[in-house]
Amino acid sequence: MTDAGFTHLDDAGNARMVNVAGKDQTHRTATAKGKVNMAPDVAKAIAADTVKKGDVLGVARIAGIQAAKRTSELIPLCHGLALSAVTVDFELHDDHVEITANAEATDRTGVEMEALTAVNVAALTVYDMCKALDRSMTITDIALWEKTGGKSGTYRRST
Amino acid sequence: MTDAGFTHLDDAGNARMVNVAGKDQTHRTATAKGKVNMAPDVAKAIAADTVKKGDVLGVARIAGIQAAKRTSELIPLCHGLALSAVTVDFELHDDHVEITANAEATDRTGVEMEALTAVNVAALTVYDMCKALDRSMTITDIALWEKTGGKSGTYRRST
Amino acid sequence: MTDAGFTHLDDAGNARMVNVAGKDQTHRTATAKGKVNMAPDVAKAIAADTVKKGDVLGVARIAGIQAAKRTSELIPLCHGLALSAVTVDFELHDDHVEITANAEATDRTGVEMEALTAVNVAALTVYDMCKALDRSMTITDIALWEKTGGKSGTYRRST
Amino acid sequence: MTDAGFTHLDDAGNARMVNVAGKDQTHRTATAKGKVNMAPDVAKAIAADTVKKGDVLGVARIAGIQAAKRTSELIPLCHGLALSAVTVDFELHDDHVEITANAEATDRTGVEMEALTAVNVAALTVYDMCKALDRSMTITDIALWEKTGGKSGTYRRST
Amino acid sequence: MTDAGFTHLDDAGNARMVNVAGKDQTHRTATAKGKVNMAPDVAKAIAADTVKKGDVLGVARIAGIQAAKRTSELIPLCHGLALSAVTVDFELHDDHVEITANAEATDRTGVEMEALTAVNVAALTVYDMCKALDRSMTITDIALWEKTGGKSGTYRRST
Amino acid sequence: MTDAGFTHLDDAGNARMVNVAGKDQTHRTATAKGKVNMAPDVAKAIAADTVKKGDVLGVARIAGIQAAKRTSELIPLCHGLALSAVTVDFELHDDHVEITANAEATDRTGVEMEALTAVNVAALTVYDMCKALDRSMTITDIALWEKTGGKSGTYRRST
Repeated sequence: MTDAGFTHLDDAGNARMVNVAGKDQTHRTATAKGKVNMAPDVAKAIAADTVKKGDVLGVARIAGIQAAKRTSELIPLCHGLALSAVTVDFELHDDHVEITANAEATDRTGVEMEALTAVNVAALTVYDMCKALDRSMTITDIALWEKTGGKSGTYRRST
Repeated sequence: MTDAGFTHLDDAGNARMVNVAGKDQTHRTATAKGKVNMAPDVAKAIAADTVKKGDVLGVARIAGIQAAKRTSELIPLCHGLALSAVTVDFELHDDHVEITANAEATDRTGVEMEALTAVNVAALTVYDMCKALDRSMTITDIALWEKTGGKSGTYRRST
Repeated sequence: MTDAGFTHLDDAGNARMVNVAGKDQTHRTATAKGKVNMAPDVAKAIAADTVKKGDVLGVARIAGIQAAKRTSELIPLCHGLALSAVTVDFELHDDHVEITANAEATDRTGVEMEALTAVNVAALTVYDMCKALDRSMTITDIALWEKTGGKSGTYRRST
Repeated sequence: MTDAGFTHLDDAGNARMVNVAGKDQTHRTATAKGKVNMAPDVAKAIAADTVKKGDVLGVARIAGIQAAKRTSELIPLCHGLALSAVTVDFELHDDHVEITANAEATDRTGVEMEALTAVNVAALTVYDMCKALDRSMTITDIALWEKTGGKSGTYRRST
Repeated sequence: MTDAGFTHLDDAGNARMVNVAGKDQTHRTATAKGKVNMAPDVAKAIAADTVKKGDVLGVARIAGIQAAKRTSELIPLCHGLALSAVTVDFELHDDHVEITANAEATDRTGVEMEALTAVNVAALTVYDMCKALDRSMTITDIALWEKTGGKSGTYRRST
Repeated sequence: MTDAGFTHLDDAGNARMVNVAGKDQTHRTATAKGKVNMAPDVAKAIAADTVKKGDVLGVARIAGIQAAKRTSELIPLCHGLALSAVTVDFELHDDHVEITANAEATDRTGVEMEALTAVNVAALTVYDMCKALDRSMTITDIALWEKTGGKSGTYRRST
């Protein structure tokens, strides 16, 4: 981490897209994780549904994948890119769901925001589908866990 | 909180939109909050920028407002609705930014998801604009703090 | 059926949206159906998947519901409207899947296009998810089966 | 056709995008066709309009082209790609319109879904513009007629 | 015209949507106009095309109508609303095309931006379709000519 | 400038996307400019705001950048492409704002429409944010000032 300037602001402090014209198209991956904390009864209800049909997490998975593809529409200064792959997976615990998203592309810019957006929108969808049971759920601990590729190379979160 | 069934699943467990045709159009509000935790140097850099031009938080505000208007495109079973107002505000602390979003509409369905979506996408935008400084930031503690209107009436989060 | 002029063309033959400003907001419903014909082995594979997890039809259901909400973006002269409810259901037969979509709104314009769009996009999604098994599938017999509400009242398809 | 697993489902049956990161960018084309069946009076009215101004089919052509460009937003597990070309053509018969769409790209994934989506949305638009004349129209026989490029090579529909 | 504050900025100068929750739903209309200036040969080529098939202006009309429906996605602080009607018309002159758009809705907020957006995007589409003939075209004189409805009542441009 | 046929129309006069499959991916840039004319009091109010917080022009900048990324959704026959960079800048004069947009990509097709779309939507956003002060503003003189790259090479507007 440095205290250097923001790459998304020019010298006058105005917003801009970082110019990636000079960068090579390289293979990039990113992994992001997050959690939805919930009352144990809600986690049990999701588990029961999963055994039967899987719709709460199944719908959230689709929402996350679709949102990843639209990241550049949501985040103003993100570059559009063509994702090679996105996966969204869930681990259901006693009082929370853990969400992991992977994104992958061969492009001039990284896919961290795509992975983070997938986790965020999947989490919002879990909230939406369970909110009649529990409005006090929280979406929390959304972080980048790994990225590879590009000039800045590999980043791995320690904890 | 009850252990009753999911309103977004039918008896066979299939996903559906809740039918709101029989509901009255009433005035609805919702407030959601969340945080982006970051290294103190990043918070200082945002503060310096805010004094000058305000672009990091200014861009994130616009992203949050625009995302709120598109909530029903992002969350598969959300109803489309016409928001009367959305606000997104920021409180900059030593090691985090706190984000508060308010949404308001006169409609047959609540605006909780719109307020939560505004917070999420504003948080993602803060992350995007600061990630060259610090990739270890986390988006956290996103929760509904208040909703009013509709058949279920007022909800207020205690802590 | 009459041979009268097109409501979507003005006297000079130019495209236009029908002006619905003078119409009342009434309760409207529409039901559309369609089929995806496929080799029996594909139908069996979908059935096997449904027993396990339901993802082929589950994903197609979500795609249909989301497309219904975006009908006015896809069909150039359709009015935007706020749907109260959309459902998409599937009946799996030996050599085809039958898709039924219902749409509902209280508005100045009907919801036939929303129901038809839901069937179409659900059918395309079934095709997409099964095309590695059988590229010769056909999407067929997409029709409006019932509409209610509005000045033209109820329509029911006979066969 | 094989009875092998679905490429869009992982071993646990969960939806995913097929990972195309390892594939080469090759030239791909696809041709899809479909029909809108209608009362002969409607076909005559379209013909009369076409002679004058061409708006029914002209609007449907634009709708089909635009939808092809947004295929990855509509079909949840489709990859985004940059189309080099899309054409949508119509052949007006006594009691139906035949629609043919061609799509073309140089990419890691095929353009079958883009061609099929163009036909579907063009057909829906024809329905929308003629529905005041005849609600009993059907959209039918939508199929892939040819694809070229990619690892699986050329496919041609026999009938 | 007054020198009063911006309705889209709060007291701290931050962007916000104007809160329209307290406003009545009234009937609103707006008319906007603009021009695309071009070399006389281009105007002649459009005229020749219009006699035959009308596609340059026909495509621009559809683009304008569709953009009007998506105004709130493009203009960050615009409210979403359901348009009752949009028309886009063209008058072809020796060295320019004049574009007129009308928008209409029954809502809590005006439709000026929808009419202006229709003119802008129709003009951009004329430019796009003619740019191989003449890159020096200019889009010019885009203005609001009339609005009715709402608390501020009727506005009419004098020249 | 020639009187040759429109590249966006086939021999029968039907709309089509230009087929760019045979073109090389080359580096492309485009610069477009435009103006929003306004009463001097409005220009003063924007200046005052800019000194404080910059929100009128800051919001317009974001709107322009985001619109550039969605050009192919707005302009029916535009190809989708991945922009390497977009900038939108403003020069505030006594009675108008001048807007300059630059777009850049490495692709098979030029970025003129992306630069022009950025200027148009930035101008519409300035109008939207100031319209409570002055409805008589006009958006004017939008033109392409320079393009580089591609088979047709460099174009520079003389005045």
